[in-house]
Amino acid sequence: MLSATHHRVHALAHSTSSSPSPLILRPLSSLSVPSSSYVSASTPSCRTLPNTPSISQGQHSTRRKRGVRGSAPMSRLVAAGVGGESSVQLPPDVQGPCVDLAHKLADAAAAITRQYFRAPFDVETKLDASPVTIADKQAETAMRELLTQHVPEHGVFGEEHGVKFGSGAGTPYMWVLDPIDGTKSFITGKPLFGTLISLLYNGTPVLGIIDQPILKERWLGVAGKPSTLNGQPISTRPCQDISKAYLYATTPHMFEGASEAAFNRVRDAVRIPMYGCDCYAYGLLAAGHTDIVCEADLKPYDYMALVPIIKGAGGCITDWAGGALSWQPNPGDTDLVSSWPNEVLATGDARVHEVALKLLQG
Amino acid sequence: MLSATHHRVHALAHSTSSSPSPLILRPLSSLSVPSSSYVSASTPSCRTLPNTPSISQGQHSTRRKRGVRGSAPMSRLVAAGVGGESSVQLPPDVQGPCVDLAHKLADAAAAITRQYFRAPFDVETKLDASPVTIADKQAETAMRELLTQHVPEHGVFGEEHGVKFGSGAGTPYMWVLDPIDGTKSFITGKPLFGTLISLLYNGTPVLGIIDQPILKERWLGVAGKPSTLNGQPISTRPCQDISKAYLYATTPHMFEGASEAAFNRVRDAVRIPMYGCDCYAYGLLAAGHTDIVCEADLKPYDYMALVPIIKGAGGCITDWAGGALSWQPNPGDTDLVSSWPNEVLATGDARVHEVALKLLQG
Repeated sequence: MLSATHHRVHALAHSTSSSPSPLILRPLSSLSVPSSSYVSASTPSCRTLPNTPSISQGQHSTRRKRGVRGSAPMSRLVAAGVGGESSVQLPPDVQGPCVDLAHKLADAAAAITRQYFRAPFDVETKLDASPVTIADKQAETAMRELLTQHVPEHGVFGEEHGVKFGSGAGTPYMWVLDPIDGTKSFITGKPLFGTLISLLYNGTPVLGIIDQPILKERWLGVAGKPSTLNGQPISTRPCQDISKAYLYATTPHMFEGASEAAFNRVRDAVRIPMYGCDCYAYGLLAAGHTDIVCEADLKPYDYMALVPIIKGAGGCITDWAGGALSWQPNPGDTDLVSSWPNEVLATGDARVHEVALKLLQG
Repeated sequence: MLSATHHRVHALAHSTSSSPSPLILRPLSSLSVPSSSYVSASTPSCRTLPNTPSISQGQHSTRRKRGVRGSAPMSRLVAAGVGGESSVQLPPDVQGPCVDLAHKLADAAAAITRQYFRAPFDVETKLDASPVTIADKQAETAMRELLTQHVPEHGVFGEEHGVKFGSGAGTPYMWVLDPIDGTKSFITGKPLFGTLISLLYNGTPVLGIIDQPILKERWLGVAGKPSTLNGQPISTRPCQDISKAYLYATTPHMFEGASEAAFNRVRDAVRIPMYGCDCYAYGLLAAGHTDIVCEADLKPYDYMALVPIIKGAGGCITDWAGGALSWQPNPGDTDLVSSWPNEVLATGDARVHEVALKLLQG
């Protein structure tokens, strides 16, 4: 098995041209992964000022359900400051092959989604026979097959085919996949949907891709490195006053009850609220074109890929209580849904993040 | 003047490669334009059944203000039927040069908007010094200069520089321009904004372009001809049941009071309401990817270009009372705003149009 795995990773490293990472030929599945997290302070990210409580990457929010109950200790955040926040990273010799593999997954999904985009669609047809459903399932299957081929010990969680837990040396690794984020965009021919690919390491997202296969735009975030768009470094933009901020959410209909009231407080504080972008809004934020994305009713495959991208561009991304977007299910868990954050706040400037969190908490 | 004008049109016809129309060398400004409208029944369009009141192109709605007061006679519409609706068209020998000129305008605007798209933007800056405002003004100026050069007698109405009325043989012609429809998309780096170019003939939109300069998608509609997307014929799709329909509006915040209540009745009747597309939604509808676009708080430059495109693709587009989207201001008018429709309903299938109109009227 070891030599077969070695061969797979070797082949992968040589067949993928889109990654700038050095080739690592050591098989992922045979790596000895330390139980402690790797720590680095080298990435530009949303950091805490000294002498204030830190929102650490590995810290789960105490609030997981819709509504704004409870409040994590608020930290006074600055966008480009130097603070003490630790950053969980992939082991150095795993990082390169995993980035290569993530690109390969994105390429495989794109080949399928492009084929079905704007395919004729009878609106009377049931959605489960629609082009978007077929593309969604086929793209996830293609990505899972690549993971099985290259890193069979890693866990996988995807929208269409559920959870497979990691085993052996792959236990700390969980790939989280959304083949088509923005199915409503996809099915109406709007080229802003995206394929989201992320890798969690001990529950923390440490690698993320947003791929837009029609516009051919690919965002990459790797914990400890600057984020890129089509290989070029990107950064969020400063915005110190929320009244000047541009806000995106996919739709106002994603909010209900307390969640709606909380969102409306943020919406009413910004310069302009806008809708309709799905994951693309987070890409625009990471590249410095908008200031806030605030969403609810999400699942891990909707946001895990965004975390390394936003953080590596200098932005902030947390749940609505300021807690980290991490998720580490166990094989015995019977209720996965209640264990994950479902509300996300992303900002390009920590000063606005702090104000928006306060507004969300009422 | 005649020979100079002839030279301008001649040069235009030879310098534009994007139009399939035959070259017409006769100068537009010296054409003898009949006062009666040209009539044709050759275009696939939203037609009326026999024995029902017709919503004709030249008929103004009696309702112009926000809210749903009054009700135009409702016609029973079918999408692909053969009815008696007349269609105002450009005089045949004017059509080709005007289409050529419209393409030239779109090219000129695109060269400017592309230059400013995703330009760095300090959100603290006043909007009138922002890239979108600069691009908007420059693009309209460039288009107006082309119109002055080629058809100086034609009228022009644009978002940035107001109304200039036509004179002499150009009196029935009014170009209506929106250099950047979707300024909020533009300024946040979202490539779904569009340049809208239309030509009204005796108040009726008879030529329209939606140009998306980043995605390089250009819709063209000419009264009496099938609409095209990048030169390929397009058509709306059938949707006989509003509960299966996909609906777009740019934002829910464009509706207020009675207008909001009316929109919400349609929104609640469809399968999925979506937001965030500006003019792009109408392009998607014309190409058969969505079923309804319903918007309020609009001005002629927001919708005139859409009319020939939607109708030439087999769809329906009216105001919320079922009235035609036409507008014929006079030089003495002191209140232009109250003279134009400000609410638009576009559908791909007349059966859904009829149901949506009833819902809008409460």
